[in-house]
Amino acid sequence: MKATIVGLGLIGGSFALGLRKSGLATALIGLDRNLTHAEKAIELGLVDKILPEDEALAQADLVVLAIPVNALNIFLPYVLDTVKSDAVVIDAGSTKSSICKVISSHPKRDQYVAAHPIAGTENSGPTAAFHGLFKDKTNIICESGKSSAKALDIANKVFSALEMKTIFMEAEEHDRHVAYVSHLSHVSSFLLGQTVLDIEKDEKNIFDLAGSGFASTVRLAKSSPDMWAPIFEQNSEYLSQALLEYIMHLQRFHYHLMKHDTKELHRIMSKANEIRRVLDSKSDKPIEEKKDILSKTIN
Amino acid sequence: MKATIVGLGLIGGSFALGLRKSGLATALIGLDRNLTHAEKAIELGLVDKILPEDEALAQADLVVLAIPVNALNIFLPYVLDTVKSDAVVIDAGSTKSSICKVISSHPKRDQYVAAHPIAGTENSGPTAAFHGLFKDKTNIICESGKSSAKALDIANKVFSALEMKTIFMEAEEHDRHVAYVSHLSHVSSFLLGQTVLDIEKDEKNIFDLAGSGFASTVRLAKSSPDMWAPIFEQNSEYLSQALLEYIMHLQRFHYHLMKHDTKELHRIMSKANEIRRVLDSKSDKPIEEKKDILSKTIN
Repeated sequence: MKATIVGLGLIGGSFALGLRKSGLATALIGLDRNLTHAEKAIELGLVDKILPEDEALAQADLVVLAIPVNALNIFLPYVLDTVKSDAVVIDAGSTKSSICKVISSHPKRDQYVAAHPIAGTENSGPTAAFHGLFKDKTNIICESGKSSAKALDIANKVFSALEMKTIFMEAEEHDRHVAYVSHLSHVSSFLLGQTVLDIEKDEKNIFDLAGSGFASTVRLAKSSPDMWAPIFEQNSEYLSQALLEYIMHLQRFHYHLMKHDTKELHRIMSKANEIRRVLDSKSDKPIEEKKDILSKTIN
Repeated sequence: MKATIVGLGLIGGSFALGLRKSGLATALIGLDRNLTHAEKAIELGLVDKILPEDEALAQADLVVLAIPVNALNIFLPYVLDTVKSDAVVIDAGSTKSSICKVISSHPKRDQYVAAHPIAGTENSGPTAAFHGLFKDKTNIICESGKSSAKALDIANKVFSALEMKTIFMEAEEHDRHVAYVSHLSHVSSFLLGQTVLDIEKDEKNIFDLAGSGFASTVRLAKSSPDMWAPIFEQNSEYLSQALLEYIMHLQRFHYHLMKHDTKELHRIMSKANEIRRVLDSKSDKPIEEKKDILSKTIN
């Protein structure tokens, strides 16, 4: 299968590595408007060659779109216009309602699979790509009813090759959920970073006191604004809800702090401790059990 | 040197392991009001024996207090009352102004060194202790002018044995700084956890969509409320400032989100990206260079 990867950054590059290693792609063509990234991707062996846009799309059996979600809205219709009538197009965007609306009445809608492989790091660009980024992570496919059986079959092969478990969901439900478990985390981290950087102007050497806890909480503040600003824009409604609830909890905590109601602070934190159930079940669950879940969610 | 460790949890237990491994302590006595923890600490070989309070303190050349900061305020005066006149007492509390005030006029004030070794994980109890927890981390000593030369010398040997770099700071400055780079991180994480757990009641399986980014940001929400509630109480003034600034930044972000001012969101995130400078300089700096900093800060 000849695959064209559009966007040779962390996600696109790691896709390329997975498709090659699994043997699913026999040829890999790259496409990136950033020429430095394109050259780097060749140098790193992520793809075999860079071709002009039309050529790269017209030759492909599979197109993977790993570009910011605002670019995706503009580019996907053109990709579908250009690809062969038996090619399959998969995206990896972190929002799904907007793109599904944009493409809903395209004559080749059924060749497209709306996906969101949930994986990433705070790093970006082709040098950030690595084999195994997607391993044991969750992939979401939205509006699967609008994709052809063939397109879903190819998508299933792709995400199996990346060793992901796939679950299915409506686009709106997807966007509502990721607002809480992904987008809000990024906002909280970006602004924690900003708050501490701001205070650093007055308090020199403040970071001498930063431990591993701070590093963990603020890690996502290193993420790419080019990628995240369009995600927040497209998911502004659900993100706004999540953000307002978060602010409300912070204000309530502040109120109890000011009242020196330490018992209530303790109670709030004890409840939040329940997150251990979620985190530990995700990281400690043996692979065998995970595979069971996979078969259950797919069947 | 005979050392008594009060509080056999993550911090006290890891202290014990470091003191034994370095050879600095030839005998280790444990003290913990939680009898299960005390027994576990013996079982794990963290300490050699558990003795009654008075006996454990009266025999010690060195006492390390690794207990919640509210308990510390009550217990430290009694410890100083009880120890030998040439014993040294070190604490490991995360706030320093309160304890320094409590102990300021104690006749044996100079036998006490007010310390804050900045290290920890989200886990607690004796089973969470491990050798190397403190390695290459920063230790803060406050009000060093009020400790005797001998006490500072012993403290220096202790923290060197743990392979920490020590810097000196006034207690108020310490508390102001940790409000931003430690306590605020914990609050942001606890309440991020609470926000998402809250929404889970309506949105089943929401955590299927949680990736490693969420796990990183919410990790500290697993921390012990018994330890953190008293810290927040003692540092409520500075933490309140930090929290209000954080909430202000979140609200401003929300305002631009609602105005669909994606350019401004991008600008805010790009500024927050500067945190990379801080995080990377902490993690990537070679040990040699770190040692240079150590000698500069100590001399």
